[in-house]
Amino acid sequence: MTKAQDILALSGGVGGAKLALGLADILVPGQLHVVANTGDDFRHLGLHISPDIDTLLYTLSERANPVQGWGLEGETWNTMAALEQLGAETWFRLGDRDMATHLWRTQRLHAGLRLSACTAELATRLGVASHVYPMTDDQVSTTVHSDRGDLPFQHYFVRHQCEPVVTGFSFDGISAAHPNRELMRLLQRKAFGTIVICPSNPFVSVDPILQLPGLWLALRESPAPVVVVSPIVAGLAIKGPAAKMMAELGMEVSALEVARHYCRRYPGLMDRFVIDDSDATMAGAIRDLGVDVAVTSTVMKSRADKQALARFVLQRDGG
Amino acid sequence: MTKAQDILALSGGVGGAKLALGLADILVPGQLHVVANTGDDFRHLGLHISPDIDTLLYTLSERANPVQGWGLEGETWNTMAALEQLGAETWFRLGDRDMATHLWRTQRLHAGLRLSACTAELATRLGVASHVYPMTDDQVSTTVHSDRGDLPFQHYFVRHQCEPVVTGFSFDGISAAHPNRELMRLLQRKAFGTIVICPSNPFVSVDPILQLPGLWLALRESPAPVVVVSPIVAGLAIKGPAAKMMAELGMEVSALEVARHYCRRYPGLMDRFVIDDSDATMAGAIRDLGVDVAVTSTVMKSRADKQALARFVLQRDGG
Repeated sequence: MTKAQDILALSGGVGGAKLALGLADILVPGQLHVVANTGDDFRHLGLHISPDIDTLLYTLSERANPVQGWGLEGETWNTMAALEQLGAETWFRLGDRDMATHLWRTQRLHAGLRLSACTAELATRLGVASHVYPMTDDQVSTTVHSDRGDLPFQHYFVRHQCEPVVTGFSFDGISAAHPNRELMRLLQRKAFGTIVICPSNPFVSVDPILQLPGLWLALRESPAPVVVVSPIVAGLAIKGPAAKMMAELGMEVSALEVARHYCRRYPGLMDRFVIDDSDATMAGAIRDLGVDVAVTSTVMKSRADKQALARFVLQRDGG
Repeated sequence: MTKAQDILALSGGVGGAKLALGLADILVPGQLHVVANTGDDFRHLGLHISPDIDTLLYTLSERANPVQGWGLEGETWNTMAALEQLGAETWFRLGDRDMATHLWRTQRLHAGLRLSACTAELATRLGVASHVYPMTDDQVSTTVHSDRGDLPFQHYFVRHQCEPVVTGFSFDGISAAHPNRELMRLLQRKAFGTIVICPSNPFVSVDPILQLPGLWLALRESPAPVVVVSPIVAGLAIKGPAAKMMAELGMEVSALEVARHYCRRYPGLMDRFVIDDSDATMAGAIRDLGVDVAVTSTVMKSRADKQALARFVLQRDGG
């Protein structure tokens, strides 16, 4: 049923969603499968919020807000304004249209639906042809260990604007969590032609996915090559705190160090590492880690950039 | 602590809230205590919605929408529009600003707060000086028995626009429910100078309050006179389905019949019945039921109308 050339992508939020959109654009509808990090999920105002799933669904349905980089285009903020008048917590901004997603999902989850089923239904209702999976239906919560103590991810990321100095991360609940069943089933069936790890944050977006029991080994055992796109370009993170985290963890802030991270934690997983032209001088050192290196422009500004990187990653332009 | 002349009002939604506003206007801040029907409360989209409490709080804080008669002034509907796009239930319209109230309340209730404590806190946050109490902290759910079967109140009222022909009502959970504690405490202390039953729907707004175990007897035992304002004027309900219900239940649609309803169900409770000038000819027949009758203009269009009726009800203009 599933064609051999289906593509699997592992993604966090904004950065990963960009490449996912590029991949969806160049593939046949339904050929792309995206596994989203859910370590950032949390309950807020009584709502179940899945930031990375939503960013993926909004991006893939072309509803994403291109300016703020999260949330919906043409959003309004009247519920937040009224919550502010009530003296409620408003550090996590929920737009009025976005609210519908959280209300809908929370209600479905209360009714007993699994997050994966909610996500599939939401994708259908938003007109997303790609398959989007939460990494697990179980609760896994990313905690950021920092100089201000242990912070739930969204408190670190949004409330404190990534200001605390990080010392490490933990993914509460992960050892008891089951990776997404459909994903594991597809991996067993060798359904994928390529497995792409999007240029998402290695520590808080990709690690939670890969560290689910059995998941990274299943990816390694899969005959599909695993291609990682570096989220670090010229020593900077395109989006988010990845570079800041690396510096605070005492790591060199470079694509090479990202490659080392993946090789160290998941030996034998990565087949090819895609770096930006500006990091071409690191190619040799990365090859010394035992992985192929491919060099291209990895910065995705336009829709064409996204599609070009997607083609390159899938070696559809001979890259 | 409580002054002898504090006033208690029993109220449903819009009609009752109008008189409550008039009462609040002519009293010292904090002197008015309003008990709201919560038989209309329901869960919708995962939110705890208390329509009558909200109508009272929005009216008393001068936030009510004067045109549609419910909800907030200057409301927007962007969450509803997005829910509609998701194919969610949208028959119960929740405005974006109003949503903040439901989110806030639902979260507070989940945190373990009682509805009465939520309501008091919400009143404070909205700047309402009057005391607003839910009739009970327990769940009581009004069911409308009709030619289309048993309908939860909001399904009858909003979803089916009061179209089904009613045959009766029940208040699920009422026999195990405790009347609001603060109210019972104040009644025991003989804190009230007058008890006003607002011109609310007798069957679905006032009956659920009065039928809470021990409540109407405590009102009857109170030394304060109980004054009922007729919701039926010249054979019509000013607002809502009261007249339609009476006709469907085989009752005469008149202020006299409302008086009979209260005398039959709650013997000895009502001391005075306030009817509109247009129903003056019924005064004799109502007096024959053993209650005082007071005749005035009971239709509240302007703010001055509300205040004038409030003064009349409290006999502050010698009415």
